[in-house]
Amino acid sequence: MRTALFAAAILLVPALVRADDKDVIEYREHVMKELNEQSAALGQILSTVIPGDNTVAHLDALALAARAATKAFDAKVPGGEAKPEVWTNYADFMKRMNDFAAKTAKMADTAHKQGADAALNDVVDALSCKSCHDVYRAEKK
Amino acid sequence: MRTALFAAAILLVPALVRADDKDVIEYREHVMKELNEQSAALGQILSTVIPGDNTVAHLDALALAARAATKAFDAKVPGGEAKPEVWTNYADFMKRMNDFAAKTAKMADTAHKQGADAALNDVVDALSCKSCHDVYRAEKK
Repeated sequence: MRTALFAAAILLVPALVRADDKDVIEYREHVMKELNEQSAALGQILSTVIPGDNTVAHLDALALAARAATKAFDAKVPGGEAKPEVWTNYADFMKRMNDFAAKTAKMADTAHKQGADAALNDVVDALSCKSCHDVYRAEKK
Repeated sequence: MRTALFAAAILLVPALVRADDKDVIEYREHVMKELNEQSAALGQILSTVIPGDNTVAHLDALALAARAATKAFDAKVPGGEAKPEVWTNYADFMKRMNDFAAKTAKMADTAHKQGADAALNDVVDALSCKSCHDVYRAEKK
């Protein structure tokens, strides 16, 4: 009986690990999509097709999402749109993510202290999404 | 010549208005998608499949997005997934949006003062997405 339970437990473990991994991937995809929507909204404001009333709120939310995104890759779970290079070049990947989080945090801080326009001077440098995605993301269409 | 220019200007106006409307709809869709991703991430945390390390950041970002969403409907532009009822029952719609923004702001405040767990007691009441979507949203699949 005990042996049967032990065997059952062994069988269950990989299933549970797979479920957790799926959740981790799903979570980081939610966070990356937040970043995408925030960046798109800011892009509309920058191109002046939308008034900038909410700019500071978007910069704050972007900084929060960037920090969450960085933490979301702490659990080193391959899969989703993350290329294998994320894990083989993990130090470089995390350096880029931490730079991104630091730069978006600085923009939010500048927005509060000097206003949205001053903060947006740094937006192109801070939102280096493409250069990182080119190396580390395999987009699923 | 002046008449021709005037005629051309008249012809251009509706095209420009349509372009603006499209931008307004696109912007509020970005903001509603932010809300969706934030809610989904919080849902994963609430169901304990994801650790709660980022809970306060998600609650802050949710409150910011809720405020931006409320403002995004100030420009009364029909279209997108907004049902006609948004504009015919605008006072009720905006009351619900303002309640939503106030409740998510209160959750963020509670999270900072009393911790994430205390804030999450109010999450079901604050995130009344479905009751509002049932009345005011025509989801495009």
